[in-house]
Amino acid sequence: MSDSCYDRLCALDREVAPLGQAMAVMGWDQEVNLPPKGLAARASALAALAGESHRRLSAPEVGEWLAGAEAEGANDEVAAANLRLWREGYDRRTKLPQSFVEEKSKVSSEAKMAWAGARKASDFALFAPLLEKQVELARRQSDYLGYDDHPYDALINLYERGMTTAKLRSLFGSFRAELAEIAAEAVERTKANPSREFTGSFPVEAQQQFNREVAESIGFDFEAGRIDTTTHPFCSGNAPGDTRLTTRYYDHDFSASCFGVLHEAGHGLYDQGLPAEHYPHPAYESVSLGIHESQSRMWENHVGRGLAFWQRWTQRAGELFPQLAGWTPEEMVAAVNRANFSFIRVDADEATYDLHIALRFEIEQALVSGELEVKDVPAAWNSAFKQSFGLEVPDDSKGCLQDIHWAMGGIGYFPTYTLGNLASAQLMEAAMQDESVASGYHAGDTLPLLAWMRERVHRHGSILTPDEIIQKATGKELSPDAFLGHLRTRFLG
Amino acid sequence: MSDSCYDRLCALDREVAPLGQAMAVMGWDQEVNLPPKGLAARASALAALAGESHRRLSAPEVGEWLAGAEAEGANDEVAAANLRLWREGYDRRTKLPQSFVEEKSKVSSEAKMAWAGARKASDFALFAPLLEKQVELARRQSDYLGYDDHPYDALINLYERGMTTAKLRSLFGSFRAELAEIAAEAVERTKANPSREFTGSFPVEAQQQFNREVAESIGFDFEAGRIDTTTHPFCSGNAPGDTRLTTRYYDHDFSASCFGVLHEAGHGLYDQGLPAEHYPHPAYESVSLGIHESQSRMWENHVGRGLAFWQRWTQRAGELFPQLAGWTPEEMVAAVNRANFSFIRVDADEATYDLHIALRFEIEQALVSGELEVKDVPAAWNSAFKQSFGLEVPDDSKGCLQDIHWAMGGIGYFPTYTLGNLASAQLMEAAMQDESVASGYHAGDTLPLLAWMRERVHRHGSILTPDEIIQKATGKELSPDAFLGHLRTRFLG
Repeated sequence: MSDSCYDRLCALDREVAPLGQAMAVMGWDQEVNLPPKGLAARASALAALAGESHRRLSAPEVGEWLAGAEAEGANDEVAAANLRLWREGYDRRTKLPQSFVEEKSKVSSEAKMAWAGARKASDFALFAPLLEKQVELARRQSDYLGYDDHPYDALINLYERGMTTAKLRSLFGSFRAELAEIAAEAVERTKANPSREFTGSFPVEAQQQFNREVAESIGFDFEAGRIDTTTHPFCSGNAPGDTRLTTRYYDHDFSASCFGVLHEAGHGLYDQGLPAEHYPHPAYESVSLGIHESQSRMWENHVGRGLAFWQRWTQRAGELFPQLAGWTPEEMVAAVNRANFSFIRVDADEATYDLHIALRFEIEQALVSGELEVKDVPAAWNSAFKQSFGLEVPDDSKGCLQDIHWAMGGIGYFPTYTLGNLASAQLMEAAMQDESVASGYHAGDTLPLLAWMRERVHRHGSILTPDEIIQKATGKELSPDAFLGHLRTRFLG
Repeated sequence: MSDSCYDRLCALDREVAPLGQAMAVMGWDQEVNLPPKGLAARASALAALAGESHRRLSAPEVGEWLAGAEAEGANDEVAAANLRLWREGYDRRTKLPQSFVEEKSKVSSEAKMAWAGARKASDFALFAPLLEKQVELARRQSDYLGYDDHPYDALINLYERGMTTAKLRSLFGSFRAELAEIAAEAVERTKANPSREFTGSFPVEAQQQFNREVAESIGFDFEAGRIDTTTHPFCSGNAPGDTRLTTRYYDHDFSASCFGVLHEAGHGLYDQGLPAEHYPHPAYESVSLGIHESQSRMWENHVGRGLAFWQRWTQRAGELFPQLAGWTPEEMVAAVNRANFSFIRVDADEATYDLHIALRFEIEQALVSGELEVKDVPAAWNSAFKQSFGLEVPDDSKGCLQDIHWAMGGIGYFPTYTLGNLASAQLMEAAMQDESVASGYHAGDTLPLLAWMRERVHRHGSILTPDEIIQKATGKELSPDAFLGHLRTRFLG
């Protein structure tokens, strides 16, 4: 009997997976390809598919199958993970009414389009009505899901299991002061020791060539993925064998798209390393946004901004971009590790990045609790930014309109970036204890590092929890120690 | 009661439309973007979505609603068309088992991939096993659907309502001899009066620029569509506001991609002119492949290969492609209207094109009836080609592997191209009776022609039948007269 319940849940996954794949491909397509007049039909189709998927996964008989499968128990750790995650998803889903899920999907499609227009025009008023809706939906979502302490808890939990507002406040509290000191000192040193500057034009085609070679060299499989161009870079794991990165190009600085690709390829390597044999069941899935971000940050920062990387790639960069001919790897490392208090999170250096996250974390909490109104977001943002970064935000496209997350309905998402930075440093520190990883790394070959991550992170999908992955891979719980140590070495060494 | 049945069928359309949109976008994406390792998951998702859509539309209660709605009768011609087309679809669908529909979708995905590889390698053996499956599926489909005379009848009817093998044989018979004479004479004249040749390289970027300007000038709305690159050009109307063309580029001949875009944009203009207010109900849909093709052929041939068009565009072509500077419109017209017996259907001129179709029509009938085995297709093709065109096919990529249609499972589709050519000439002849259409046309402005087609063809969706559209727009039934007259004027004038 329970075998049969488990099998029914597996069959349900197979029935619903095509809807999930359709939503992933259509969501990617909406960012990359969709003509504007196609938005209305697309938004309504995505809302309907989300609703249909939700309806099937939250049907009463699913609850009965789950209870039956749980009564029988799991035969192995994969089945145990599936059971645990089916339960988590079912409980979460049955708390959200069908109409709510459809509304959120529709509002998110519309809000993304409004956001893109508002950002282009740097006009917050064009986005505000949709952000109002998203905040209101976030509050309703918290109410449906329930929380003990702060309505924001329920939202964080959607992205990082077991995380709370209080824990995050404590974590940020434990290192924000030290981070601010390191950042200020790093900015000082950058000012005192100016690096060489990138000059001239970096043609997009040459940037694409460079990025592709770099992505291939770190192991991204282009037979199972691709790179496209969007306003806001992302990585979409549509299905096994179909992992898509996007980036954006600046004519004056090739490194922005290069680090963008390293970042998204880090996400992509994780997706390409997930245990395809468990698709389309929950054990296949990536385990949390924090762990996902640990991988993107690793290839972007720990690999891409290191000396060994530029010992391998400086000459090639000089071939593709003649203005870089004659640069030394050390000059390149200095140029891509300048610390500055600047406006745009995704362009921020490692030393100041998490101060951007801390700011968003404060604003999100205040929006959700009602302490801050949407109309006051630009003023609140600009004031907090002045305080943390000492800079006046010149317009909202460089301020509160820079990120797509709120438009997507992802309130509660930002803190996972900082969790990822901490995990990234801790995993890297542990991996470098392995002789082959360390010697490869120093020779500009990160395939042993990838193999280490495949073995200890990627292949586990969601079979282990985020905590278990960190604990088993590094021998200790997540802490800011490795991250702060890394920043000190890199910026104050 | 019957009102309620009609409403239920409308609600069903709205429920199923998102699946249709997903299949359209994912099908387009498979041709344009999908990395090869993503094919397995994509094929299985598309098969599942097709099966789900089929299952819902052929459920027993749908038959009850249909009977109820029919008993009440329709309030207007739109409702009448919806009822008629729901009935047609339901009867067709309930004759096909769910498992058959899923199998056909899966085989088609795999066959398209195998075909692309076989065509690249010019190795029919790589495609033959999948073509065997498609022929076998086509025969089973005929058996399920039923037919009076020839199993091929059931297949043609999928693309052109009311058409039969006998009618097509009679139609081809009525003008094939005259067509062959015109073609032979046109080829003679081309040989006797050689036109200027295109020389040098036509960079893809310049071709794209030219094509885009041309497509915009004939009224294709890029806010509601786009152009991409694929091996085999097509037009995909994903949803209202989202119509996508594809083309391919040859470095040595800009005109191939230009006429490809004019052709697909002709399809696209029809899609963009469909009555969006009736989406997602059958009255919204395009009415038949023959009528669809009449529109693509009109912009490709009647507009794009005419003198007025090149009086407008020759100078611009010379700006983008310096080797064309100094060409006269007359020289350009001569260069793009050369008649040749050549291998590739999609590159064929108007005078010889329908001989390619006649060949495929014969082979398809023989495959379906069992008179021809798949393994003998290359020999049969090459022999028939020698007879019609006087040429030895050098390899299968220039012969029986050139078209995607059989890989897609579209046996019975080819004859609609000839039906389209006949309809195109007949509609054009009628439109040119209108003073504003004719004077616009001769001044290089085809927007009045588009307005005429919008009014008499596009806006009717499937509210009128193909026969009614032709009859109302041209005052007579479909015949080869206008087409043969057009060929004589163009090639023997």
